[in-house]
Amino acid sequence: MELKDTIRAIENYPKEKVIFRDITTLLKDKDAFKKAVDEMATKIDKDVDKIIGVEARGFIFGAALAYKLNKGFVPARKPGKLPYDKLIESYELEYGKDSIEIHKDAINPGEKIVIVDDLLATGGTSKACVDLVKRLKGEVSSIVFLIELLDLKGRETLKGVKVESIIKY
Amino acid sequence: MELKDTIRAIENYPKEKVIFRDITTLLKDKDAFKKAVDEMATKIDKDVDKIIGVEARGFIFGAALAYKLNKGFVPARKPGKLPYDKLIESYELEYGKDSIEIHKDAINPGEKIVIVDDLLATGGTSKACVDLVKRLKGEVSSIVFLIELLDLKGRETLKGVKVESIIKY
Repeated sequence: MELKDTIRAIENYPKEKVIFRDITTLLKDKDAFKKAVDEMATKIDKDVDKIIGVEARGFIFGAALAYKLNKGFVPARKPGKLPYDKLIESYELEYGKDSIEIHKDAINPGEKIVIVDDLLATGGTSKACVDLVKRLKGEVSSIVFLIELLDLKGRETLKGVKVESIIKY
Repeated sequence: MELKDTIRAIENYPKEKVIFRDITTLLKDKDAFKKAVDEMATKIDKDVDKIIGVEARGFIFGAALAYKLNKGFVPARKPGKLPYDKLIESYELEYGKDSIEIHKDAINPGEKIVIVDDLLATGGTSKACVDLVKRLKGEVSSIVFLIELLDLKGRETLKGVKVESIIKY
């Protein structure tokens, strides 16, 4: 089974001339979901301490990977969702700005961290997560995506960090 | 290790006289996270077809359980997040209303479904998920929560459905 065949392409969504890669068809297929998590796991160094999942779809792969590899799981959340002392980092969108937050006590200095998300597009969210980890004096071992949209050159935004992806468009 | 000891109590959050149960301290502890998922897994019938995770924290436990038990994963999402044909169900909040959505092709008629979320409070969101599964002619095997707030009597809202929880306050 090819993982790519389990992802649904939705044309002109969310706007004209964009093809949206819908992973819900992969997720609901138990063999595809298992294969995706297992392949992502091969990209993660054995000695990492924690896995960050980026809200919301990054929670799905990040949590499954944290369980499989027996690592701690840290949610990077949209603003206003975390209840304790936190750091915030903003990043640019095509139109406007957005932000992502992490608890200050989520990462200890020197810990090795993997950031997980479903999709690498322009890389803005991931870059903000890298900056949050650095502010907490953690070390980003790598960033692992299920899908990478090559046209959007997210790797350039993430220069200096090891970037892995399973499926490329 | 007692799972309860890994959950942080935040007093007067999000408002006066409420104690918020912060699970991020459980999640970041690899042994606690593993234990929580393993205990939740014991509450799930072997023959279920898919696991629904409720956005956003339900994704964390739902996805880890779907991976562990080799089941398909279905996200129940906040309005406007799913890209394909979907059903919506509204439910009451303390002040106002909210809604939850699911893809129409997420569940096939006759499939056995487990709904997973982190917290059972009043049960409104879970009840809306049960109704979505029924509209798709699926069968709800059970609803599994990490935490149950007994005072809020969520089980009454969910009468007729098997409800399981690991930690009770």
